[in-house]
Amino acid sequence: MRKVFQAELHQIGEELIEISTLVTEAMEKSVRAFAGADVELAQEVIAADARIDFLQNDLDERAIDVLALQGPVASDLRMIVGSLRMSASLERMGDLARHVAQLARLRYPSTVIPASLTATFDELAELDILISHKVTELLETRELASVTDIQSAKARISELHGSVFKAIASPDWNESAATTVDVTLASRYFERFGDHGVSVARKVSYLVTGQWQPEGFMV
Amino acid sequence: MRKVFQAELHQIGEELIEISTLVTEAMEKSVRAFAGADVELAQEVIAADARIDFLQNDLDERAIDVLALQGPVASDLRMIVGSLRMSASLERMGDLARHVAQLARLRYPSTVIPASLTATFDELAELDILISHKVTELLETRELASVTDIQSAKARISELHGSVFKAIASPDWNESAATTVDVTLASRYFERFGDHGVSVARKVSYLVTGQWQPEGFMV
Repeated sequence: MRKVFQAELHQIGEELIEISTLVTEAMEKSVRAFAGADVELAQEVIAADARIDFLQNDLDERAIDVLALQGPVASDLRMIVGSLRMSASLERMGDLARHVAQLARLRYPSTVIPASLTATFDELAELDILISHKVTELLETRELASVTDIQSAKARISELHGSVFKAIASPDWNESAATTVDVTLASRYFERFGDHGVSVARKVSYLVTGQWQPEGFMV
Repeated sequence: MRKVFQAELHQIGEELIEISTLVTEAMEKSVRAFAGADVELAQEVIAADARIDFLQNDLDERAIDVLALQGPVASDLRMIVGSLRMSASLERMGDLARHVAQLARLRYPSTVIPASLTATFDELAELDILISHKVTELLETRELASVTDIQSAKARISELHGSVFKAIASPDWNESAATTVDVTLASRYFERFGDHGVSVARKVSYLVTGQWQPEGFMV
């Protein structure tokens, strides 16, 4: 019984890593599609999101089965409930990568971001991809060193997100209203993606240490 | 044992209703603050959000205790796991109501929305408040009649959300870039709020009928 249970827990952990890996791939491709106005790549990300949704459902069903059949307690129970929360955050990250790809597709053959903000968005994209990689690493190793990197990356994302709105509000901004909308949404998608990454990191950190860090502490 | 368990389940249900009621109040006040540039009311909503977050944590801890101590199975287990998901959606709805209030505070003493879109945003706000009331009703009664109303309201929100972007992209749009940003974000906040309401409704519907409705089916 105990052996089956450990195998089930292991399987849930593996599935989280698989979802996180797919999310990272999705964001990497979305960013290339977004920066390079590559509509085929955008289409690929949009189509691949169904697989992430499927895996999330599968993981959730598996977790509920383990709860029902094994009646876990203490740290195992928290691990399983934590996995349900992490799968929800990862699924949402997949959606946000898809939203970025959808913006790229909508504006094809133009690029979404005007030249004045290309460097900012390149950095936002890099930070999101970094967070996504670090989240996978954290799920694999449970080494909490990654948590600090994820938090620092998110702090920088918040700064950049703020700077986008400052740029738009400045008198020098003379882009079309449609571009203003795109930039606003894109910046928010990148910011939310990073934020969900932090949620996953906080959850892993809690499961490893048993200490819940309040949200304010993490930023 | 069974009696304690039923009392615990009942308590979780009551707490969901309490959170949903607070979310509705938050959105009602936010909308008044937003439409009437009422900074004090906005401040009230922003401060009250901590209570929603507290109740969500409390509910989650309670649910995990029930899982650990009572080892529920079958429909009770799904109810508890479903409650964890619903509390997460409701907490997010509270955040979105707070974001609307924050926009109102940021632009005070001006209003956020230009005259040309006031009617659209009034309707968006009304629909969100309707959804929020219906969600509370659904949690109280488990009468699935509300689910259809929630879905219809969300379908209309999606239309209005689309019409906002059409208005911005039209040649008649001559608002400032800052207003364009505000309108974009506000429309997205109202749209997301409704979407989370639909998530809660789908979850209740699933718990009552045992039938999961795929997302596409609901919109």
